[in-house]
Amino acid sequence: MLEHEAVFYLFFRKRPFKGSMAITAGLETAIDFLEHFHYDESDLNYLKTLNGADGKPLFEQAFIDYLSTLKFTCDVDAMPEGTPAFPYEPLIRVKGPILQAQLLESPLLNIINFQTLIATKAERICWAARPDPVVEFGMRRAQGIDGAMAAARAAFIGGCESTSHVLAGKVYGIPVKGTHAHSWIMAFDQEKEAFRIYSEVMPNNCIFLIDTYDSVKGAKRAVEIGKQMRAKGQEMIGVRLDSGDLAHLSIEVRKILDQAGFENARIMASNELDEYLIRDLKQQGAQISIWGVGTNLITAKDQPALDGVYKLAAIKKPGGEWEHRLKTSEQIIKVTTPGILQVRRYKDQNGCFADMIYDELTPFEKQPIAIDPLDPSKTLKIQQEEHTDLLVPIYRRGKCVYQSPALMDIQKNTHNNLEAFPKAMRRFYNPPFYLAGLEKNLYDLKLKIIKDEQESAV
Amino acid sequence: MLEHEAVFYLFFRKRPFKGSMAITAGLETAIDFLEHFHYDESDLNYLKTLNGADGKPLFEQAFIDYLSTLKFTCDVDAMPEGTPAFPYEPLIRVKGPILQAQLLESPLLNIINFQTLIATKAERICWAARPDPVVEFGMRRAQGIDGAMAAARAAFIGGCESTSHVLAGKVYGIPVKGTHAHSWIMAFDQEKEAFRIYSEVMPNNCIFLIDTYDSVKGAKRAVEIGKQMRAKGQEMIGVRLDSGDLAHLSIEVRKILDQAGFENARIMASNELDEYLIRDLKQQGAQISIWGVGTNLITAKDQPALDGVYKLAAIKKPGGEWEHRLKTSEQIIKVTTPGILQVRRYKDQNGCFADMIYDELTPFEKQPIAIDPLDPSKTLKIQQEEHTDLLVPIYRRGKCVYQSPALMDIQKNTHNNLEAFPKAMRRFYNPPFYLAGLEKNLYDLKLKIIKDEQESAV
Repeated sequence: MLEHEAVFYLFFRKRPFKGSMAITAGLETAIDFLEHFHYDESDLNYLKTLNGADGKPLFEQAFIDYLSTLKFTCDVDAMPEGTPAFPYEPLIRVKGPILQAQLLESPLLNIINFQTLIATKAERICWAARPDPVVEFGMRRAQGIDGAMAAARAAFIGGCESTSHVLAGKVYGIPVKGTHAHSWIMAFDQEKEAFRIYSEVMPNNCIFLIDTYDSVKGAKRAVEIGKQMRAKGQEMIGVRLDSGDLAHLSIEVRKILDQAGFENARIMASNELDEYLIRDLKQQGAQISIWGVGTNLITAKDQPALDGVYKLAAIKKPGGEWEHRLKTSEQIIKVTTPGILQVRRYKDQNGCFADMIYDELTPFEKQPIAIDPLDPSKTLKIQQEEHTDLLVPIYRRGKCVYQSPALMDIQKNTHNNLEAFPKAMRRFYNPPFYLAGLEKNLYDLKLKIIKDEQESAV
Repeated sequence: MLEHEAVFYLFFRKRPFKGSMAITAGLETAIDFLEHFHYDESDLNYLKTLNGADGKPLFEQAFIDYLSTLKFTCDVDAMPEGTPAFPYEPLIRVKGPILQAQLLESPLLNIINFQTLIATKAERICWAARPDPVVEFGMRRAQGIDGAMAAARAAFIGGCESTSHVLAGKVYGIPVKGTHAHSWIMAFDQEKEAFRIYSEVMPNNCIFLIDTYDSVKGAKRAVEIGKQMRAKGQEMIGVRLDSGDLAHLSIEVRKILDQAGFENARIMASNELDEYLIRDLKQQGAQISIWGVGTNLITAKDQPALDGVYKLAAIKKPGGEWEHRLKTSEQIIKVTTPGILQVRRYKDQNGCFADMIYDELTPFEKQPIAIDPLDPSKTLKIQQEEHTDLLVPIYRRGKCVYQSPALMDIQKNTHNNLEAFPKAMRRFYNPPFYLAGLEKNLYDLKLKIIKDEQESAV
């Protein structure tokens, strides 16, 4: 079957965090993987050691030999990073020799699922905190080394202003930001002494962490050192709270700062923050102007995995035509969509109003009908013509034809893309319905294939 | 302060998953990190580019120079991997020059938090599935590349029999196991044809995935191919279900297999499994004998982070004595314990019955009293003498003095360590109370330090 061509696509089924959409991320990392995709001698030697149930080698030598000469020759199309995406829409489409395309399943899912998840979570958190900046603070609680690195990157795409992860700063160019640790305070006999020495050695990074012993006392001590700094022509940036009732404490600390003449000093807060807690704190008048968000962002704690899958959708035998393929299931949400799929996003003067997944093999009308994949009662005849096809060419015959934007530009693209949608769609729960439907001829074709399979014999 | 010595320790505050304990993991990975701990020229050049609020360099050249010659010289003590651990117990203790010990905070937390979390989750899932084996199936949903690698390792420590992650098999020597994909079936015109060809190319790895279209039909088709294999002297291993009602379908499929004479064929199941669903399926008579567990294991979905922290507990100035240090907090669970801490585990003829955290600087009686750190009404006077001190030497003056056991042996140690505890402690919720207390003199000292701080002036 080496000569068979196949189309696979990567999509998710459920809207993450019960919001409207996901924010795509990870494509540049996936490209980096594809550029280095090969099996080295140690890989092949390992595969040769694997045995089956009968104790004999699992893989034929011919397969090992094939892997040793494997050269990536697929076409890849994908949504650029920072694109709002909806369930069942292909985020990535791979077309090429079936064996190659199949081998990419696990790595592509690993890379895209996670970064898309974190970019989506970050966007929600940044939306809650707006207009205040959010600093990604999660490295220590991240799921492994790359769980921290890749997430710092994705969190920046989703809107975070900076990260406390210095290696992510170095590798990805993300601005880094942080404060001293509690241990800095504890290493001295007195908290005030700790602040004073810190102001001497790092006068241009003075955010004093004031909750080591007592946040209100800490604020007063910070103010004293802030005054000493002023006398030397220096200015503290502010203070950080990391425990206790952040609404109450930030209000008290704000008073202490203001009364001492530090109206411009910032109050940074951290401690189990997420979009819901930030929203509540703001509603309760919290005087916080920088949000340090760790665990709940870096692990997407309330939903730590995107349910993305990578499924075969069409196949072409040597000399033949493309044939549609789908997976049926007892569970409707697990049924896949066949074809060579593309996503069209429609826009009118109010912004984006619907997406339509269509099949490049299945013709459709100039004013097509889009049907919700899970609820066929929801349809829309699309009269408006302004649209964008979301999948863009990334690889052609194994050659990368796409230049990833700078990370800063991806962050901007995310912002601009989201601005084209109604604000109500950024609600955390129960956002308004947005149709991301199947083009009707594709929908009908899908139903026909399911029916044929149901009627097939054992 | 370069000459100051400090003691830091890494501990968690809350029992993960509301169970009894955590299973430690990640030490070998941490040792690997420490063996390579250094700042290379590109790191230092990056640090030099960082500026503070005034646009001037954040770090003095002297600090950069210090990092360039940094040589790890700390003592490290730790619980071996696979040790049951309780809240507030030091999992790792680092003693040495304060700057070095501080720099390890984030990497140690990243490594130990995550692997300990996953080993703990895996133990629960394997306990639910016992005596059936659990295969770790999570790579595609893991949090990044190392989120899959490190988790495969930790899941094995927690009791998983194998992993579907081939690179983890290669790197860590974990047995690998897997089935063909849905796409294998979909690449053929007929499911039966797909099974037949698979049996020809991989006769020694035949677990047929039967739910691509219809699981019952799939089972019947698998049986037909199983018979053809038998005629050639081969035997299928079994079938795999990946969707639908796994209790009902496995019972139906078992009948089909048994009636066709495949009483020894295994039924593997996967699809959103965790310890709770496995327990329920078993109670409902599911005929499943191999459990493939992905997302919920690899991300520890119901609690995707261990809340481990790394805190300063004692300090020694040049020429001085060790001084106790602790962090107070408005939140009692955030108060730390001072000293050079060690954990003693006591055992009688029924097994382990209590732990006591003690301070090597604070003498105590031969029959010490242990006090629960959060509930001082829970105390125990320990009369029994058989005990083990859980922290063992890992580094002495920067030199590794510990040889990590083989991964297979760590898995065995986990098992043996757990067997020494009452079975009731492995309950998923509301397990019986187990005292992991502070030694009374240490407890009293801690209270005194808190009181002194509360009475201190601004």
